[in-house]
Amino acid sequence: MQRAAALVRRGCCPRTPGPWGRSQSSAAAEASAVLKVRPERSPRERILTLESMNPQVKAVEYAVRGPIVLKAGEIELELQRGIKKPFTEVIRANIGDAQAMGQQPITFLRQVMALCTYPNLLDSPSFPEDAKKRARRILQACGGNSLGSYSASQGVNCIREDVAAYITRRDGGVPADPDNIYLTTGASDGISTILKILVSGGGKSRTGVMIPIPQYPLYSAVISELDAIQVNYYLDEENCWALNVNELRRAVQEAKDHCDPKVLCIINPGNPTGQVQSRKCIEDVIHFAWEEKLFLLADEVYQDNVYSPDCRFHSFKKVLYEMGPEYSSNVELASFHSTSKGYMGECGYRGGYMEVINLHPEIKGQLVKLLSVRLCPPVSGQAAMDIVVNPPVPGEESFEQFSREKESVLGNLAKKAKLTEDLFNQVPGIHCNPLQGAMYAFPRIFIPAKAVETAQAHKMAPDMFYCMKLLEETGICVVPGSGFGQREGTYHFRMTILPPVEKLKTVLQKVKDFHIKFLEKYA
Amino acid sequence: MQRAAALVRRGCCPRTPGPWGRSQSSAAAEASAVLKVRPERSPRERILTLESMNPQVKAVEYAVRGPIVLKAGEIELELQRGIKKPFTEVIRANIGDAQAMGQQPITFLRQVMALCTYPNLLDSPSFPEDAKKRARRILQACGGNSLGSYSASQGVNCIREDVAAYITRRDGGVPADPDNIYLTTGASDGISTILKILVSGGGKSRTGVMIPIPQYPLYSAVISELDAIQVNYYLDEENCWALNVNELRRAVQEAKDHCDPKVLCIINPGNPTGQVQSRKCIEDVIHFAWEEKLFLLADEVYQDNVYSPDCRFHSFKKVLYEMGPEYSSNVELASFHSTSKGYMGECGYRGGYMEVINLHPEIKGQLVKLLSVRLCPPVSGQAAMDIVVNPPVPGEESFEQFSREKESVLGNLAKKAKLTEDLFNQVPGIHCNPLQGAMYAFPRIFIPAKAVETAQAHKMAPDMFYCMKLLEETGICVVPGSGFGQREGTYHFRMTILPPVEKLKTVLQKVKDFHIKFLEKYA
Repeated sequence: MQRAAALVRRGCCPRTPGPWGRSQSSAAAEASAVLKVRPERSPRERILTLESMNPQVKAVEYAVRGPIVLKAGEIELELQRGIKKPFTEVIRANIGDAQAMGQQPITFLRQVMALCTYPNLLDSPSFPEDAKKRARRILQACGGNSLGSYSASQGVNCIREDVAAYITRRDGGVPADPDNIYLTTGASDGISTILKILVSGGGKSRTGVMIPIPQYPLYSAVISELDAIQVNYYLDEENCWALNVNELRRAVQEAKDHCDPKVLCIINPGNPTGQVQSRKCIEDVIHFAWEEKLFLLADEVYQDNVYSPDCRFHSFKKVLYEMGPEYSSNVELASFHSTSKGYMGECGYRGGYMEVINLHPEIKGQLVKLLSVRLCPPVSGQAAMDIVVNPPVPGEESFEQFSREKESVLGNLAKKAKLTEDLFNQVPGIHCNPLQGAMYAFPRIFIPAKAVETAQAHKMAPDMFYCMKLLEETGICVVPGSGFGQREGTYHFRMTILPPVEKLKTVLQKVKDFHIKFLEKYA
Repeated sequence: MQRAAALVRRGCCPRTPGPWGRSQSSAAAEASAVLKVRPERSPRERILTLESMNPQVKAVEYAVRGPIVLKAGEIELELQRGIKKPFTEVIRANIGDAQAMGQQPITFLRQVMALCTYPNLLDSPSFPEDAKKRARRILQACGGNSLGSYSASQGVNCIREDVAAYITRRDGGVPADPDNIYLTTGASDGISTILKILVSGGGKSRTGVMIPIPQYPLYSAVISELDAIQVNYYLDEENCWALNVNELRRAVQEAKDHCDPKVLCIINPGNPTGQVQSRKCIEDVIHFAWEEKLFLLADEVYQDNVYSPDCRFHSFKKVLYEMGPEYSSNVELASFHSTSKGYMGECGYRGGYMEVINLHPEIKGQLVKLLSVRLCPPVSGQAAMDIVVNPPVPGEESFEQFSREKESVLGNLAKKAKLTEDLFNQVPGIHCNPLQGAMYAFPRIFIPAKAVETAQAHKMAPDMFYCMKLLEETGICVVPGSGFGQREGTYHFRMTILPPVEKLKTVLQKVKDFHIKFLEKYA
């Protein structure tokens, strides 16, 4: 027994058979005997607790899936258990997930993905030739001709080339270099990675990151994680959420007191605010970044979601280039896109890319090194991104169906954007700026003083209190404006426009009815 | 012009049409006029440089895709350009990517994935019913019945249930709770997330993380990123890379001088070392963690890759449970699995899960919160993981083919493991421990003093120098032991056993020939 115990204690491949496959009880008994355990000891304090955990992680908040969404989940479970409520379903209008709300995937995209996943289908007559052609192109560029191999950490080469070609076409010929393209696990991964590399310094030299208020709370969450300094600049609600360079100046000046402002984040089209920046505005921002030596992050994941006929998407990259070499050779820029939004709605695939401009070559090496630790982004998501940037063109078999599906999705979203703006603006005590783009309404709501006090008594932000009541009384889940940031004393919520039209109309009516009752109750 | 300029400067949706769609040259000209640019200024210093970047990121190293692999890529490009070399192809034996080296995906897995990707195929007679059944189960649990929706941040519910059922079966009935299961973007993501939550404190209270030497360099990379303290414990090369608890004790005692050791990482089966821990060894480790109050991380991604007939995989979870309540109620444990290894080799899908045991409920809330910022792991990878844990069973249509394919892959790997061990041990100056599991050889190589000096003159680690020479003379890319850690004065390299048998034999012969020549040259 002792020799066997000694052998196995050495943990080596013993020449005499060890005690493999002992029964559970004999194993436990033997363990107890050897290890002198005191079985009556009470449960011990955990190593990992709220007190001992990483304080930077504790500080992180992400409202889009935060407390109100957890509450929505609880209510859903109660409904499933048959508990009666004033409604029969929870409507999750909190998250920009189009397919969850019934939007159909683009047929061509899923055909190519299926062919890549199970290449036997390349012999099937049920798939069009243009889809097969793209699938073969992707597979040939993959290790072992399979989506199951790791790709290069920067992404599959030919997909990066296709992304660069897309950007060049999109920007009217302004050239993109595949070497500046990095495929990412959704845009969130790229944004997080770039911020991680940028943040340094300590005390008053700690990196300051300028973000819009209201913002998409990925930014504040990553800033928390990295222990960077958040520098807020306020969008102008009176002017359709425009970005005012004077406000950027105010923000950066004040920030220099207590940090080293180094990064300027722009979301265009905006989330949650939906504004589409004018070309002139973009030029002003670029000039400001050039003047103040700020690294520009341009989150452009809604570039396909522009609804207002007066608005047009201009990429930061294109405008930068067209401003001439003093800017285009000097301003450091990272632009982000994703498969999650647009007309595709492929959130679950976690596809995305970033284009970096004017990054120091040594920094590009550092970037690839950092990405290599996670090996590579999901290759299926990279394939999805490839189809987004390389869709059917006129003359190809799949072009008509593709165009129809794309236009149908975008037309539907545009219609719902207008419907939502109009209906909200009919409600006393709600004002909604035009939804120029993206997929959200961010209406301002008037919350009576009595409700504000009640909320504070419950230790809740007033708009969280409002949204909780809305959820409990109507089953509609939206995210309070406090989760995105807003000017002091103003209240908002963010609601998606993703439910199908008829359901959306019902939702809007219910919100209207709720709001009127709320105003009366807390008058 | 002024009014229009003022309107667009406000960035609002102007009522008079703005200067949309200007030509590039007029846009540039107008920008220059407005912004008073000094065009002759020379290129400016970058904001983001090696000096200004995040120093924690700069410190990160990841040898598996490090300098030698970059060199391999350069050589491949040279071959493509027709430059003559002593070989016609680069053999990438540096990375555990089976499908890249020709291993075929499991048919059933890809069938279910294709059905999930393009549900029209559910009507196709070319797919077996058991695959369709699993696809329907997965899709029904997805938002909008689509892989394109975000899932819950913890992962698709029914997939977590299937993972829990798998773990319970694997561990002979030791129960797993779906609530303790988190789907992840590969195991790397889970490991990184848990470490991130754990690391806290400053100065001498900074969290210490115990890792095996040699290790898989994800651990050292994440420790660098998090600015945690790396605490090395050495595996015993003389004893088949066994883990010796006395060495754990030595390591933790010394560490307490300068940090707060809080975490113990285990890789079983080992990477790069391939040892499979005995049950007794696992019990000893668990007792040690209990005694020293260490949070246990058990990286078990090679649990399906056990080749030695004397060895068997025992999960840390099972052994912990069988050691009785003093341990099973108190020791905090996170165990990791992945779709990348085993018999599946689905690296590109980035599928994985972690099972957490005895985590404080508030910590579980923090974990979900942190994961929610990235929304969710790729749903296609979650689907792949589901098939891994819920494969065809006897009686099902696909069972025979599935079993055949699985046994073929694993049998082939076992054969190559033995072949590699035996061939290396025939080479004078190379000693290779048994490859009990995983998919790597980590032979020790004798490097003559003259070669060591030459390496140092080139400012290279001696085994990096060796591996570079091997690459340049044979085209074979392996990773030097210095990338994984090793005892001072010893040298190794890690080579995968993934090339097909005949190619592997050729590779081994070439390494042998190279090594003999190397010994002669530097005698």
